[in-house]
Amino acid sequence: MTLLAPASPSVDHDTVAATPVLELHVPTALDRLRRLRAVLPATAVHYAVKANPHPALLRALAEAGASFDVASPAEVRACLAAGARPDDLIYSNPIKLRADIVESASLGVSLFVVDSPEETHKVAEAAPGAAVLCRIVTSGDGSDWPLSRKYGCSTGEAVDILRLADSLGLDPAGISFHVGSQQRDPSAWDAPVEASSRVFATLRDAGLRPWLLDLGGGFPAAHEGPGGTSAPELGAYGAAIRGSLRTHFGRRVPRTVIEPGRSVVADAGRLVTSVVAVVHRGGTRWVYLDAGVFTGLVETLDEAIRYRLETDASGPTGPCVLAGPTCDSADVLYEEQPVWLPLSLAEGDHVVLNSAGAYTTCYSTVGFNGFAPLPTELMT
Amino acid sequence: MTLLAPASPSVDHDTVAATPVLELHVPTALDRLRRLRAVLPATAVHYAVKANPHPALLRALAEAGASFDVASPAEVRACLAAGARPDDLIYSNPIKLRADIVESASLGVSLFVVDSPEETHKVAEAAPGAAVLCRIVTSGDGSDWPLSRKYGCSTGEAVDILRLADSLGLDPAGISFHVGSQQRDPSAWDAPVEASSRVFATLRDAGLRPWLLDLGGGFPAAHEGPGGTSAPELGAYGAAIRGSLRTHFGRRVPRTVIEPGRSVVADAGRLVTSVVAVVHRGGTRWVYLDAGVFTGLVETLDEAIRYRLETDASGPTGPCVLAGPTCDSADVLYEEQPVWLPLSLAEGDHVVLNSAGAYTTCYSTVGFNGFAPLPTELMT
Repeated sequence: MTLLAPASPSVDHDTVAATPVLELHVPTALDRLRRLRAVLPATAVHYAVKANPHPALLRALAEAGASFDVASPAEVRACLAAGARPDDLIYSNPIKLRADIVESASLGVSLFVVDSPEETHKVAEAAPGAAVLCRIVTSGDGSDWPLSRKYGCSTGEAVDILRLADSLGLDPAGISFHVGSQQRDPSAWDAPVEASSRVFATLRDAGLRPWLLDLGGGFPAAHEGPGGTSAPELGAYGAAIRGSLRTHFGRRVPRTVIEPGRSVVADAGRLVTSVVAVVHRGGTRWVYLDAGVFTGLVETLDEAIRYRLETDASGPTGPCVLAGPTCDSADVLYEEQPVWLPLSLAEGDHVVLNSAGAYTTCYSTVGFNGFAPLPTELMT
Repeated sequence: MTLLAPASPSVDHDTVAATPVLELHVPTALDRLRRLRAVLPATAVHYAVKANPHPALLRALAEAGASFDVASPAEVRACLAAGARPDDLIYSNPIKLRADIVESASLGVSLFVVDSPEETHKVAEAAPGAAVLCRIVTSGDGSDWPLSRKYGCSTGEAVDILRLADSLGLDPAGISFHVGSQQRDPSAWDAPVEASSRVFATLRDAGLRPWLLDLGGGFPAAHEGPGGTSAPELGAYGAAIRGSLRTHFGRRVPRTVIEPGRSVVADAGRLVTSVVAVVHRGGTRWVYLDAGVFTGLVETLDEAIRYRLETDASGPTGPCVLAGPTCDSADVLYEEQPVWLPLSLAEGDHVVLNSAGAYTTCYSTVGFNGFAPLPTELMT
C-alpha cells in the first residue's frame, strides 16, 4: 500500500486543467540543501518527508546524499524507493503505532524518537536493540507556526527515559527537539542546545555514551513575516547554532543532524491559481481563487503562513479578501489581514502563491466538494 | 475524472487495518431523511453531497426520492451516477468556475445560486436561460460552525440581482440563505424568512414571479453542545420554520427546499479509532488516537464540533487531551476543553467518535505523513 504517490499526482495535460497546480523546481530544493550544508558543514541533513513527499524530489535529494526524517511506514517505503538506505532514516514521530514500529524495523530502520517511558518500552518490545533519541520540549517562541505541547518532555524526564532505554537494551543515542516551524529567531536553538548539553553531561556522568543531537527543523522559507518582514538569512542560523554548540558542549560536541522540510522545498514551489470571480461585498473586494484551504492551503488557517503573491494583472493595487473555490465558508485564506492585489484583477487572471512547495500538496483533501487534490508539475 | 469515489474508499479487509474506519449505516441516514420530511412535509429535501459523497449513500437517498445540493461538476456526476435526474439538483455554490457552469449545464443542471451581479452575468453567459436563486447573508448566530461573510448579499442587492437575472433571460427563481451549520436555535430561520418575504414582495410588485425559497441547511446532528447540551429535536425546527413561512408569506408561501447534509448523515456514522498511546505530560494525560485532524477530523479545529465519545474501557474517568497520530503538532483534537475518558484506557483500546458521518471522510487529506485517508465500511 503506497500512500504517498497520490499525494502529488503529476499533471497529465490531456485531462487536468492548467490551474491550480504546484510548479515544483527540484533544482531549487537541491540548492537549498547545499546552502543548509554550507552553513552547518558538520551537520547531517535529514529532509522531513512530510513537507512534500513527491517521488522525484525524494530521488533527487537521495542522489545528492541527503538523509530523511520519516514518521510512518509509508514514508519509510517512499524513501527506500527513492534510493535511501535504512540507516539514512530517523523515525521522528515520538508517538508510534506498535505495528508501525515493527514494520519499519523490518525495513531496516534502527533509530526512533521517543518522549515518554511508555513509548520507550514500546520501542524496546517492537524493535529490540534500536537506538532512541528523546525529544525535549521547547517554547516555540519566535516561530510563525508554533508547536503545541503535543510532544516533548523535560530534561529531567529525558535523563530518566534514556537511562530506561539503556536498561531495556536500547541504544540511548541522545536528544532531539524542535524550535517551531518557520522560526524567525536564529537564537531560538540556544536554550534547547544548552538544555541538551545538561542531559548529555548527566548521562555521561552515569556512564552512558550519548552520541547524537537532533536539532530539528524550523529553518525558514521566504514567507512574508509580520509587518511584511522577511526571515534572516540561513547563514545567521548556521552561525548561531554552531556558536551554541561550541558554548554549551565545548570540545565534546556530539554528532548533529537537522530535519528541515519547509526550508528545503517551500521556495522550490509556486502554486499557480486562477481567479474564479471578483465580487464586491459591502465595500470589501473578495477575490475567489481555484485553490483554497481544502486543496492544499491549510497553513493559511488563522492566517499563520502568508504566501508572497504575484499576479499577471497590473496597475494600482488595493486590499482584498482571498478565498477558495469550495462552497465551504471556512475556505477563506486571508480576511483579518487582507492582501493587496491590482484593482484590475479579473476572472481568469493568474495569482501565484510563492514559496508554496511545502505543506500544500500533502495537505490537500481527497477531493472535498468535488475539487481535485492539488497536482504537481515538475519544472526544469 | 471521478473525484468522489476515492473520498471514501470501501474497506478491503485483506489490505486495510481495522481502524481507523468510518462505520456508515445508510438506513439511519434514510431515517433522518424521513424525519426531516415529516417535520417539513411541504418542503423538498436536497441532500448536501459535500457532507459525505459515498456512492452507496447517494444511491439510497436517490432511491428514497431525495434531491441533491451540489457545488462542482464532480458532485453533479456523482448524483447522476446515483440515479438522480438533473432536475433534482441545485448547484448551490454561489461562486463558480465558468467552465464548471458550462459542464454542469451540459449535464442538464438548470438551477444555480448566485449572490453578485458578476456571477449573474457569468451564469447568463455560461448557462443561458437557467434559473437562479440569489443568496442573502444571515447572522450565523446560534450555530456551532458559523458561516463567514464569504457568501450572501443584502436584500436590496438581491432585488437588483434577480431583476438583472430577469433582464439577462434567466429565470429569477427566488432566494436562498444558510443559517450556519449545526444551528441550535430553531428560530434562526425567522429573520431570513422575513427578509426573503420582503424580496419576494418587491419582485412581485415589479412584475416578476419568484417561486422558490431555499431554506439551506444547518439542522443539527447529535454533537455535544456547549456545556454538554444537546440540540432541540427536529420537530421544533419544522414547527418554527412552518410558522415563519405562514407569518411572513401568508397565503403566498412559495415552493421551499432545504439542503441538509450534517443532519442527514452525521448520526449515520461512527468513527472507530484505536488508542496509539497514553502519555502523561506534566500532570496532563494525553491520549493519541490513530485518526486525527489530517485523517478526517478537521471540524475539531478550534474545538468547534465536539463528538460524543465511547470506549471499550471502563471504570472511573478523568480528563485528557485527545490528539491524532501524525507528527504534526497541529494534529490535536481537544486540548482547551479536555474530554473525560476512563483512567484505565490503554494502547489498543477502541475510542468511538459518534455522529461522525458528515465532514470526515471527505475532509481527509490525500495521505499526509503517510497516514491513509479515512475509509468507509458500510454497516447493515
